[in-house]
Parts: sequence; C-alpha cells; structure tokens
Amino acid sequence: MKTLVVGGAGFIGSHLCDALLKAGHTVCCMDNFSLGTRENIAHLKEQEGFTLWEGDASDGDVLAEVFEKSRPEAVYHLAANSDIQASAANPDVEYQNTYTTTYQVLACMRKFQVKKLFFASTSAVYGDKRDVLLDENTPNLAPVSYYGAAKLGSEALISAFTYMNDMKSLVFRFPNVIGPRLTHGVIFDFMRKLEKDPSRLKILGNGKQTKPYIYVTDLVEAIMKFASVLEEDKTGVTLYNLGVEGDTSVTRIADILCEEMGLSSVTYEYTGGEGGWKGDVPRFCYCLDKIHAAGWKAVYDSDEAVRKTIQEVRREKEKG
Amino acid sequence: MKTLVVGGAGFIGSHLCDALLKAGHTVCCMDNFSLGTRENIAHLKEQEGFTLWEGDASDGDVLAEVFEKSRPEAVYHLAANSDIQASAANPDVEYQNTYTTTYQVLACMRKFQVKKLFFASTSAVYGDKRDVLLDENTPNLAPVSYYGAAKLGSEALISAFTYMNDMKSLVFRFPNVIGPRLTHGVIFDFMRKLEKDPSRLKILGNGKQTKPYIYVTDLVEAIMKFASVLEEDKTGVTLYNLGVEGDTSVTRIADILCEEMGLSSVTYEYTGGEGGWKGDVPRFCYCLDKIHAAGWKAVYDSDEAVRKTIQEVRREKEKG
Repeated sequence: MKTLVVGGAGFIGSHLCDALLKAGHTVCCMDNFSLGTRENIAHLKEQEGFTLWEGDASDGDVLAEVFEKSRPEAVYHLAANSDIQASAANPDVEYQNTYTTTYQVLACMRKFQVKKLFFASTSAVYGDKRDVLLDENTPNLAPVSYYGAAKLGSEALISAFTYMNDMKSLVFRFPNVIGPRLTHGVIFDFMRKLEKDPSRLKILGNGKQTKPYIYVTDLVEAIMKFASVLEEDKTGVTLYNLGVEGDTSVTRIADILCEEMGLSSVTYEYTGGEGGWKGDVPRFCYCLDKIHAAGWKAVYDSDEAVRKTIQEVRREKEKG
Repeated sequence: MKTLVVGGAGFIGSHLCDALLKAGHTVCCMDNFSLGTRENIAHLKEQEGFTLWEGDASDGDVLAEVFEKSRPEAVYHLAANSDIQASAANPDVEYQNTYTTTYQVLACMRKFQVKKLFFASTSAVYGDKRDVLLDENTPNLAPVSYYGAAKLGSEALISAFTYMNDMKSLVFRFPNVIGPRLTHGVIFDFMRKLEKDPSRLKILGNGKQTKPYIYVTDLVEAIMKFASVLEEDKTGVTLYNLGVEGDTSVTRIADILCEEMGLSSVTYEYTGGEGGWKGDVPRFCYCLDKIHAAGWKAVYDSDEAVRKTIQEVRREKEKG
C-alpha cells in the first residue's frame, strides 16, 4: 500500500517507516526537520519504495503538493511538537506544529479522498488525573499542557472529519515512548548531566513522578497490528490507550542509569515539589483492558524499556 | 469592569453587550462582521462606555492591538462560525473563525495577563449521542461536525491556558439559541419559505429532529449571573450545560410558526431521513441538574422560546 508518514523523520516516525517498508508498503516520508533528523532516516534513503519530502505539514499548499505527487492510500500522522517543556514557554509551537498539522492533514485527506488515518495521540489529553485509572471512557478530559490541548483538539478534528467523510481512523493515546533515536526527555537529560558530572544528579521535582514507559519497537508493532482495522469495511474512529505493564519513577530511572553507567556513589539533588515543571503530570496510570482484550501486549515492561533504552542509546553513542 | 466582547456584534454577543452595559461595565466590542451586523449594535454606538473595534480576532496582531488599547479585565469570547450547515462544505471556516479565534484570544490573555474568561461552547461537542442524557460528565465526546470539533478543541485550549496561567474561566455549552437578531437556522428558513409560498413548506429530514431552544435573554441572564464565579479567588474552569425545560421538534416549530402567521392549510413536504443534513445531530437532551442546583432556571421553556422568537422576528420585520 502507498503510505504517507507525516513526521516520518522523527523518533517514532522513523521507526514506523522502517516497519512499513519491511511489511512491503511504499513510504512517502514528510518532515520539516524541526525535531526529526536526517540521521534517523539516513539508512532508508537508498531503499526501494522510500521517498523523502522536506516540508512543513502545517502549510496546506505544501501538504497538498505532497498528496498530489504521492497519492497515498493511508496516512500515518505523527508530526507534532513532542517537547512539552519547550512549548510551555511558547504555546504557538503547539498551535502550529501539533494542531494545525492535524487540521491540514485532514483537510488534504478530505480533498484527495484518502480514507485511512493513523494518529499518534497522548496520555496528556486526560490532564492531571493522577488518582484515576485512565481508560478510554474516562470523562472530563482536561489537559494541563498546551501539548495535551492541541492533541485533544486534534482528536476532536479526527472525530468530525472521520464522520463527515466516511473515513477509518485509528488513534493511540501513547504513554511516554522511549528507545533508540530518542532526542529529549528525562533519560536523555540525566545521561547528559552524569557524563558532565558523575558525582551528582539534579532531579526536577521530588523524583516520585511515575509514568509508564513503552519501548518504541513495542509501540510500532502495535501500530502495525491494529492498522488492520483500517482495512475493514466499517468506518469510524478506533481508539486505544496504548500502555505497558508497570511504571517507573524518575528516581528509579536515575537508579537504572547509574547501574548501567557503573556509577555507585551519585548524590541525587531534588529540586522538590510533585511535578517536574508546570504542565507536567506527575503520575498517571492506564487501564490496559481494552488493548489486552484485543490481543496485544508489550514485550517489555516499563523498567525494562528504560534499561534497554539506556543500553541502546549508550551503544549508539559509542559507535559515534 | 472593563470588558472585551469578542464577536460582540453577533446575535448573542450584541445581547450580551446590552446586558454588560446595563450592569455598569464598559464594553469594548470587537467583531469582523462576518456574521455579526452593524444593525445589532447600532443602538449602542452613542452609549457611554461602549467602543467598537472592527477586526478579525483570528489575527493575533490585530487582537493584540485591541488588548493593548482597551486593556480588558475580563474577556467574553463569542466569536465563531455559528452556521454549522455552511461550514460542512468548507471546514476552513471553523479552523479560522472558531478555533483560531479562541487560540488567539487565549494567547493575548496570556500575554496581557488577563485572567477572566467567558466562553460560549455548544452541545455539538458531544457529537451524536441522541439516546444519552447529556451531563457535564458524559464521556467520549465525539463531534460529528467541524463546528463541534473546533469548539471542543477550544475547550481543550481553555483547560490548558487556564491551568498554565492561573486563570478563571466560565464555559457554557449552549443548546440552540434563538430570539431577536437571529440570522439563520430553522425558524428563519421556515419563515422565509412561507413568506414566499404560504401553501407548502419543505422540511429537511423527517421533522422529528428535536432540540431544546433557549431564548437569548434567558441565556444572557445566565451568563451575567454565573460570571460572578470569575470574581472568586479560586482559579480553574467552571463548566455548565445551559439548557431549558422541554424541547421542540422541527414539525412543532412549523406548527407554531403557522399558528403565528395565521396559516391553517400548509402542506409539509419532508425530505426524509433522521437528520437535516450530514453533521446535524437529530436529537439531544441535556441533564440540567448542575445548573438548576446552582440556582438558575430559564424563564421560557423551549416551545415558548420558539413562539416568542417568531413573534419578535415578525415584529422586527414589520418595523422594517
């Protein structure tokens, strides 16, 4: 099938391009390289069935040209600002890179009659519901970050466009996603800090912020498996909370990292408070009944995903 | 208090300007006159405390100028495309006039440190839940119109901006709102058709589409009453389904209209089907427990609101 991966040079997008090509699909990868990198897709450039478009999906004219030339049958939309901490200082980034990209993708799908969509949503749509077991029917979604707001707005757009244009859409609300090609986030920060000064580690908050971390290949496998819903006759939106067994606190991440780096006497310096920064949700927990009942389970639990990521990122670094 | 009413020359906005001025506030009315009209606010132009800005709130620079000059303490945001049927053919209208106006209003409030917001939301955020008694905790909001999607996206933005900037926001999900200065919708359509040909009336759908209609002065009274929440110390979003007793079917509207026009032998010609057009929600019903418990009740029930609107609109027309 001819696929378009918007945000295909990003951390998750590039892994998805790998999987789609491996499954025999052609891949048109579009990216504006704001967070995505050429390195992430360097190994695909010569590969049969892969084409790269440099362009910004929030520009409707540019995107229409990509649709016109590549004529996709299915669109995987992963373009977004994924750095929540950064957009807290500048919400325009979310308006442009997260919401408007979704709007333009849907407007082009409507125009070019493309009916199959995968969308990467997030736990951030729920807001701060730290004491609620979050399932797909949890009410009162109340994002506390501009990122979560733009993603919830995107879900709303997908609902209306899917209904109005008889589309099929698959939406996953991702937890924290980690693995090779990761560019930011707590693991990356800690690693950088400890390389600079292996005697101590400054930790934002009280270190008890606890979230489920999914390994990126587990996530991509789930996308590939459930994309079969886009082949069914039934139109509509299919939504899953995508999660893993267990969760990992920020202090636990530091512990695993120190173990892997062979550091035994690091002093942790906590800045204090429950959240890492304003807009950060300190804890959340997914109910996984729906996705488990549908026959999928992650290979790695949260702690394993953290450890494997640290190992992979260190291996990449050693390779240079 | 210095207030800014965005969309203040519109049907509802202009009634709100009336009420705010009457209560002793100054009103800066901003409108791009896409749906609002100069006639709606003509009676206010010479009034002390009223200023008019012609401009488009989806343009951040223009809006920032209005904030800079008028320095509002509270913003009432009612700017939106309210013609759902029209935007079904062109979703860009909702992206621009409904979602982007909200984004820019919030971005300016953040920039100018304005902390009090009223926002006009809608039953359309729920989507087609015709067999559910809709309360503020109903889960799985799934808009079927581009209008509903842009309003739900706006609510998501308000959630994040309110949290991130310690604001106080009051959100009403309006039912169908009618009354003097109405510019479109079923009552208006039917009246126009019957004036042309009083022998027959073409009705979209099966006529059984049934919704609660609220009279605009009831609605504005509720806004004025609950705006007191913006004066409290507590920050956060306060949300109400704003509704009336009873509901009115499309056929019942035709009946009331014929009665008021003194027409006794009109043939109704139904186009058939449950909804008036794609994206129309044929029925919805609000649970009013929360707003009633808060001590508010509409004066007019749905049928009365319809009859009173017909009488007022006819009176206005006779005046020319």
